Amino acid sequence: MAPSPNQEASNTPDDTVTLGAVGEFGLIARVTRERIQPAATLLGPGDDSAVVAAPDGRVVACVDVLVEGVHFRLDWSSPVDVGRKAAAANLADIAAMGAVPTGLLVGLAAPRDTPVEVLEGLADGLWAEAGLVDVGLVGGDVASSSQLVVSVTALGTLEGREAVTRSGARPGDVVAVCGRLGWSAAGLAVLTRGFRSPGAVVDAHRRPQPPYAAGPAAAVAGATAMIDVSDGLLADLAHVAEASGVRIDLRRTAFAIPDRLRDVGSALGVDPVDWMLTGGEDHALAATFPPSTPLPEGFTVVGAVEEGTGVTVDGEAHEGPSGWQHFT
Amino acid sequence: MAPSPNQEASNTPDDTVTLGAVGEFGLIARVTRERIQPAATLLGPGDDSAVVAAPDGRVVACVDVLVEGVHFRLDWSSPVDVGRKAAAANLADIAAMGAVPTGLLVGLAAPRDTPVEVLEGLADGLWAEAGLVDVGLVGGDVASSSQLVVSVTALGTLEGREAVTRSGARPGDVVAVCGRLGWSAAGLAVLTRGFRSPGAVVDAHRRPQPPYAAGPAAAVAGATAMIDVSDGLLADLAHVAEASGVRIDLRRTAFAIPDRLRDVGSALGVDPVDWMLTGGEDHALAATFPPSTPLPEGFTVVGAVEEGTGVTVDGEAHEGPSGWQHFT
Repeated sequence: MAPSPNQEASNTPDDTVTLGAVGEFGLIARVTRERIQPAATLLGPGDDSAVVAAPDGRVVACVDVLVEGVHFRLDWSSPVDVGRKAAAANLADIAAMGAVPTGLLVGLAAPRDTPVEVLEGLADGLWAEAGLVDVGLVGGDVASSSQLVVSVTALGTLEGREAVTRSGARPGDVVAVCGRLGWSAAGLAVLTRGFRSPGAVVDAHRRPQPPYAAGPAAAVAGATAMIDVSDGLLADLAHVAEASGVRIDLRRTAFAIPDRLRDVGSALGVDPVDWMLTGGEDHALAATFPPSTPLPEGFTVVGAVEEGTGVTVDGEAHEGPSGWQHFT
Repeated sequence: MAPSPNQEASNTPDDTVTLGAVGEFGLIARVTRERIQPAATLLGPGDDSAVVAAPDGRVVACVDVLVEGVHFRLDWSSPVDVGRKAAAANLADIAAMGAVPTGLLVGLAAPRDTPVEVLEGLADGLWAEAGLVDVGLVGGDVASSSQLVVSVTALGTLEGREAVTRSGARPGDVVAVCGRLGWSAAGLAVLTRGFRSPGAVVDAHRRPQPPYAAGPAAAVAGATAMIDVSDGLLADLAHVAEASGVRIDLRRTAFAIPDRLRDVGSALGVDPVDWMLTGGEDHALAATFPPSTPLPEGFTVVGAVEEGTGVTVDGEAHEGPSGWQHFT
């Protein structure tokens, strides 16, 4: 049984209300109260499981884990930002299959002394991002831990289409991207150096803006393979190249450098194209299309699929890291 | 990009291969290799998302978070046991809706120095438990953290039936349970006192044996409400009583005390019925049925639904805790 809401034993000295004070059920009540579930949520939070519509007889599902100090810092990002980012990382994985999201679940592990308002902010962020694609937070679980860990599961529907996997790229296809590249990396570079501006790139790091609708649009247009850019374009396209048994060659000059990235790059002495090639967390979509396919709005051709293996830039191997280094 | 498999920098001095050494992709390769996916897995691990069958146009979904030191101890349970328990907790939540599981996803956060064999054992346990109900581990994510956190998502199908929620119990219904009660609590009591036997109750704590098939069977038989006993029978039935707007009264004499529990209770000076009423983690199923419903095999009547609120035992409030105390 959850402690009663007026239990104060676990409050910190400054009267911050903590997770320990309200308990699991108190938190769940706070973050589910007065939320409006969309039509796809057939049964929302409050039972052993949720029930979500899967209209074409299949469900698309993925999970992403974000850890405080590894994927986010609460001195750099607000709890709302963290919630948005956790949802965005998953919703982009649904979009990358050519699917449309139908619901989110969250598995949360948090220290007992976590202020409830941090967790409420996190839930607000999850709901805000979910609202962009008309889905709800349909279920979850909360446990006590030493470090804040947010594990989000996203569900989606393919609307009767085939899933666009990583393995369908064929020599002759074009490679195209949709959404921001390098913005989050530029923002992280700024924050790492102790700055808080320019706001545009710092905000991009805090709150990715994946082009959710572009995923289904690419599927409809005939995309042969697709991936969301979470680790870095080179690193993620390497998965497509490997799964498809092809080489992907990018053209450096095909990347139009946004003025903001050029300015930040100049200030920090970094070639902004490197951020665009190796920066993750913007959750752009990268897809391959048969040649002469009319591309959906927002996609720009940046390279071609060829015979061979690996990812090259202008025919050459890229020097240096190709993206986010897991566990290093 | 994942570190190359022969990278040794993160190995511990005794040459244990760690998560940090093999990296995220190395771990995923190890735990997905040579696994056979059942028919419901339309697209398994290795892409942005998985695709799972949802034959009646709906998907049942739930998430449970297990934290090392809170929900399990690796000196008391093997990694395989932890994996089984994490899967069981979720699969029981699917069964408690009257649904049949279709797939599992896992969000894992683990310290970099975690031996890979611990995580392989955990994956083996997830697969072993999933195999009991013919489902696969269809996807997941791995992140670096200071504490081992296992967040499992289970998916299921209602096979065309309505979900059995917590809110359908009506005065006059009988309350029945299926599966073990109190065994895990007795095992925990033994372990907490520094013993490792009797093996039957210790094993019950390490590896719950939820009666998965009893959930759909109860739904088919006409169960009006159902819940899985994860926190303790009294605590969990309190959710049913609250959601249904009824009182639930249990009969203490209706609980047949297994000899094992009686023996352990005698040795430790505990009334075994208290374990049966308040012990969680066995993941028994508790359901209500209209009077005179022929109960499915394995269900035993232990009480009745009445007008009122709360849960009573022989008409009286239960003294002491009613189950697992979250965050206390």
